[in-house]
Amino acid sequence: MKGIFITFEGPDGSGKTTQIRLLAQYCREKGYDVVMTREPGGTPISEAIRSLLLDPSHKEMDGVTEALLYAASRAQHVAEKIRPALEDGCIVLCDRFMDSSIAYQGYARGLGDDVRVINEFAVQGTQPDITFFMDLPAFQGKQRVASARELDRLEQEDLSFHNAVYEGYQELKKIYADRYVCIDASRSIEEIAAEIRERFDAYVICRTEE
Amino acid sequence: MKGIFITFEGPDGSGKTTQIRLLAQYCREKGYDVVMTREPGGTPISEAIRSLLLDPSHKEMDGVTEALLYAASRAQHVAEKIRPALEDGCIVLCDRFMDSSIAYQGYARGLGDDVRVINEFAVQGTQPDITFFMDLPAFQGKQRVASARELDRLEQEDLSFHNAVYEGYQELKKIYADRYVCIDASRSIEEIAAEIRERFDAYVICRTEE
Repeated sequence: MKGIFITFEGPDGSGKTTQIRLLAQYCREKGYDVVMTREPGGTPISEAIRSLLLDPSHKEMDGVTEALLYAASRAQHVAEKIRPALEDGCIVLCDRFMDSSIAYQGYARGLGDDVRVINEFAVQGTQPDITFFMDLPAFQGKQRVASARELDRLEQEDLSFHNAVYEGYQELKKIYADRYVCIDASRSIEEIAAEIRERFDAYVICRTEE
Repeated sequence: MKGIFITFEGPDGSGKTTQIRLLAQYCREKGYDVVMTREPGGTPISEAIRSLLLDPSHKEMDGVTEALLYAASRAQHVAEKIRPALEDGCIVLCDRFMDSSIAYQGYARGLGDDVRVINEFAVQGTQPDITFFMDLPAFQGKQRVASARELDRLEQEDLSFHNAVYEGYQELKKIYADRYVCIDASRSIEEIAAEIRERFDAYVICRTEE
């Protein structure tokens, strides 16, 4: 692959979208062709699969069916958009990718390591070169709000679910240690962007030397 | 599981439908509750996935996406129909199941052993107790017709594809040796039905003794 595939992971509100935009701008200034994407990635087949997943009449959908449908949507996104862009030498920046499925469905929903296996099948070797993990406890904000009172049952459930997701990402950092870059997302936008640019440049130098 | 899960595999025209009907009749006469099914199995979600697979506007569908969608459709069929019937103590007779995907997509289309892995995830342990493999070379009939002349290019391609499917089933017989029963499907309907009844009875006796 001539291009570079970069994914952003981490909880909602951790600044992924902002940082993708800033890194895209930096890369374009350096003369790279950049593709920004997120799933389902705008391919008609992936969109069709996603509507099926979100159809409110499909209440009986099994968790296993759901995991396979997300993987199918991803497979098409990779085959039709991500892989061709990488073959053309583009930098592909993707907002969430296979690791989100593994953390949410595999770890937090309890489907286990099989979710990683089916997603590795889905991407057929098109794994990210770099994954920026925006490290910020999902409930940091929420907990602060609730500090003066007890968490209600739903908030406690939410908390344990998001803790499980977080634990999932910690496991992923070990499994995919070569591509994981952990970013302290509690800092200012510019501090974070500067670190991401630095890590990106370091990766490009490393790869050029290989 | 209190019930018995029986699948029928083999080329089209090998008599699967006829034999399922005859075995169902035999089982009902013995007092069993019988569920006859085939994929997508009549569950609305499986049907919706199947329409997506068959939509002629989805020409760009990748082979990997396709394999994941078939597995997703099967996962729902198992969760919503097959597993509940087995838990209720029914005998479930299914016309083609995971082995068809493994033989056609895994072996003949070259996606490899991963197709077995994603299908094992899809069925979550609900594997057949018995698989009757209707053994009949797919091109036996066709070859006879063509014997007087050369096979054209398309017929030769078809032939090598169906040979690959057949080889796939030979591998499956080794992997799932404990559930495979190979039936010589070149005999009369009644001869075949008698052997299937015999094998079924033997399985029931074995299981009762365990």
